[in-house]
Amino acid sequence: MKVAIIGCGAAGLTAASYARRTNRGARVTIIERGSSPAYSRCGLPLLLAGEIQDPQSLLFADQEWYRANGIELLLKTGAVKILPEERKVLLSGEHTGELAYDSLVLCTGADPILPNLPGIGLRNVFTLRGLDDALQILEVLKTCRSAVVVGGGAVGLEAAVALRSRGLEVTVVEMLPQILPGVLDPEPALEVQRSLEARGLKFILNSRLEALEGKERVEEVVAGGHRLPCDLVLLCLGVRPDLTLAAEAGLEVDRELQAIKVNSRMETSEPGIYAAGDCACSPSFTGVHILNQLGTTAVRQGKVAGINAAGGRAELPPLVGTFVTKLFDLEVASAGLTEKQAGELGIGCISAAAELSCRPKYSPDRLRLRIKLVASQEGRLLGGQIVGPREAGLRAQILSLSLALGKDVGWLASAEFCYHPLVGEVNEPLSTVAEILARKLRR
Amino acid sequence: MKVAIIGCGAAGLTAASYARRTNRGARVTIIERGSSPAYSRCGLPLLLAGEIQDPQSLLFADQEWYRANGIELLLKTGAVKILPEERKVLLSGEHTGELAYDSLVLCTGADPILPNLPGIGLRNVFTLRGLDDALQILEVLKTCRSAVVVGGGAVGLEAAVALRSRGLEVTVVEMLPQILPGVLDPEPALEVQRSLEARGLKFILNSRLEALEGKERVEEVVAGGHRLPCDLVLLCLGVRPDLTLAAEAGLEVDRELQAIKVNSRMETSEPGIYAAGDCACSPSFTGVHILNQLGTTAVRQGKVAGINAAGGRAELPPLVGTFVTKLFDLEVASAGLTEKQAGELGIGCISAAAELSCRPKYSPDRLRLRIKLVASQEGRLLGGQIVGPREAGLRAQILSLSLALGKDVGWLASAEFCYHPLVGEVNEPLSTVAEILARKLRR
Repeated sequence: MKVAIIGCGAAGLTAASYARRTNRGARVTIIERGSSPAYSRCGLPLLLAGEIQDPQSLLFADQEWYRANGIELLLKTGAVKILPEERKVLLSGEHTGELAYDSLVLCTGADPILPNLPGIGLRNVFTLRGLDDALQILEVLKTCRSAVVVGGGAVGLEAAVALRSRGLEVTVVEMLPQILPGVLDPEPALEVQRSLEARGLKFILNSRLEALEGKERVEEVVAGGHRLPCDLVLLCLGVRPDLTLAAEAGLEVDRELQAIKVNSRMETSEPGIYAAGDCACSPSFTGVHILNQLGTTAVRQGKVAGINAAGGRAELPPLVGTFVTKLFDLEVASAGLTEKQAGELGIGCISAAAELSCRPKYSPDRLRLRIKLVASQEGRLLGGQIVGPREAGLRAQILSLSLALGKDVGWLASAEFCYHPLVGEVNEPLSTVAEILARKLRR
Repeated sequence: MKVAIIGCGAAGLTAASYARRTNRGARVTIIERGSSPAYSRCGLPLLLAGEIQDPQSLLFADQEWYRANGIELLLKTGAVKILPEERKVLLSGEHTGELAYDSLVLCTGADPILPNLPGIGLRNVFTLRGLDDALQILEVLKTCRSAVVVGGGAVGLEAAVALRSRGLEVTVVEMLPQILPGVLDPEPALEVQRSLEARGLKFILNSRLEALEGKERVEEVVAGGHRLPCDLVLLCLGVRPDLTLAAEAGLEVDRELQAIKVNSRMETSEPGIYAAGDCACSPSFTGVHILNQLGTTAVRQGKVAGINAAGGRAELPPLVGTFVTKLFDLEVASAGLTEKQAGELGIGCISAAAELSCRPKYSPDRLRLRIKLVASQEGRLLGGQIVGPREAGLRAQILSLSLALGKDVGWLASAEFCYHPLVGEVNEPLSTVAEILARKLRR
């Protein structure tokens, strides 16, 4: 049995590894156009901040690992075309000719969205998608004193924090009226913004990028009527699935999400072809497909795709979209839908928010978290947002499982949590907010 | 409507508070034989350690709170007898006569188990059950240089850590071959023991307390053939439900657990009488009744009892038994059954354990946890144990919910968790251990 995988990112590597475990006799081949096997993109902001010194440490596994695990890794090799009828992929680059497959996993990933503006080609204008980007930025960083980050999503903010921790003056420009619109509602987003401002970040919201100006090097950003002088620009406008191969091969693409549509087994519309990672959208807990371009999702989709591609049987539970980041000393986490997103899906919802202590009042360990929970009008949990110095992410895990299981607010309010004065509070704050929400629902 | 509550501990206070919320017109009365309203017993070791200075800070609420919430609090008043037919409680002490009720909640708590040994009355022999105990110990602490703690359960270990952090030489004596037998299997228990030994605690296992010797003050403990000179002895042998009133009133008592038997609504065998807290056993997730003498359980049972006693409707989900403590810099957490306990219940089981990193290898934040999961031979999760510097308790919450819902190992292995290099690992260690266990199950 021949399993071919296009793209060696987190999804591709995981697919290969699980294909190998599932079928010891299979021939597993990864085609990767870049010169490096999979590394952690999530670590790039840490590299930028100088919290990681060695770029090589971001590699999930070195080439020896692929050899030792019997995974053929074709680097610097492009997949030019898929021939679904003949079950072949045409190759170019270091390896040419064609690669026959019995099953194929597309992990073609996504590319940074670039605005179509003059000045985009100026020096010191970067994206932060790949290791090369980070290394180039590090190279010019010594000569830069101010930066503009365009995009107030997670990657933009992580990059902004990294640059700020290097001592640069940093301004974040965001088109929408709030930061982190994908994971937070406006009020918690404002909390996060205030906290980042206290650490020296500047924000310009409601402002679209209009121009990049300068002679050779970028010197000024124009956005929402503001002129922002700067030595460095980071464009963090999100990423767009790479559909080139999929579209040409006739695979079904979700029109709205512009991503390869897969079912819970990661099967595309074409028998024997699977997709996973940043290029694929799969069913979510609300029933609709979502494109959830997170590392964890890439790994989980890759695992399911790899097992199925090698003849096993695996299914991905509906995606919740569970997220956490760390910005200076603030953990920002969320799971499921924001109130705004629920509204956009036409789901009538209700919410409760509170800032609560996670320790008894007498505890020497202080910790307060701001928690918001969102539920349907029938009381089903739809999402939650948690912001605080620590332990926000682990509470998002609890919410994630509750959402995946379709639990209601009352259930979370009466769930069993353990406590110790140095570790938690008798009344777990998630339960307390759920109880507030349950009372609202009864009215 | 008249709701009477006997005992103002965590359960009694919570019952009163929820009875009041449920029925604004009810007359809610708490009868408490002590001189203080409810305070946090869990904070006593911190008081002993000097991490809390002010004993008053342990009060959940001051007397003004009870007044403001329309809860009548009769301190220094004993409930002498319950007359179920007449729906009355006979009182003695500061308030005498009788108190009529429509519904009654028994929160009589539990008393420390004392060995029937000569020397038990010597000076400097203490238990650590109440605030008075802690204050007395603090009083003599200045003149003590060494202590023996009898009992290697959670309270014994927390007390031992507190005394050690005060600079005393501390030896823990435990009857069984391991510490924390109620929450850990032997291997993780040994890990914890080694870690505590590294911080200077001494352990004598497999040893029953035989004698307390001394002239006026305790001078020596004899246990398992060892003679242990010491200036202070703490007896932490567990607590036994106070059944005096319940037995006399003819309420059903679980013979094995020697606790008041209640259903999921906290109803005793007598209509209109409820019980909650350390005196009550209620149904667990395995179907049998358990006596789970934790603060969180007292609060949850008290809430359900208070709502139902006031005419509302509430039910307690089956108990899991979710536990966490902090011993020096080690969090020790567990949920559900240990492998040993499952065996004792006649449930055939299988387990997997691993020490895993909770951060990617390149993360500047290091955290490793030791995790053990226990499942039935059919793959249903039965319990888990987690030991490490932090984040163990929050993982016990995740396990607790999984256990309460009767989820299986495969479900936990494929559950969605979020990640960030500074907050978590792409593959959540709980999932990784679940996956190891799932592979064992397939064999």
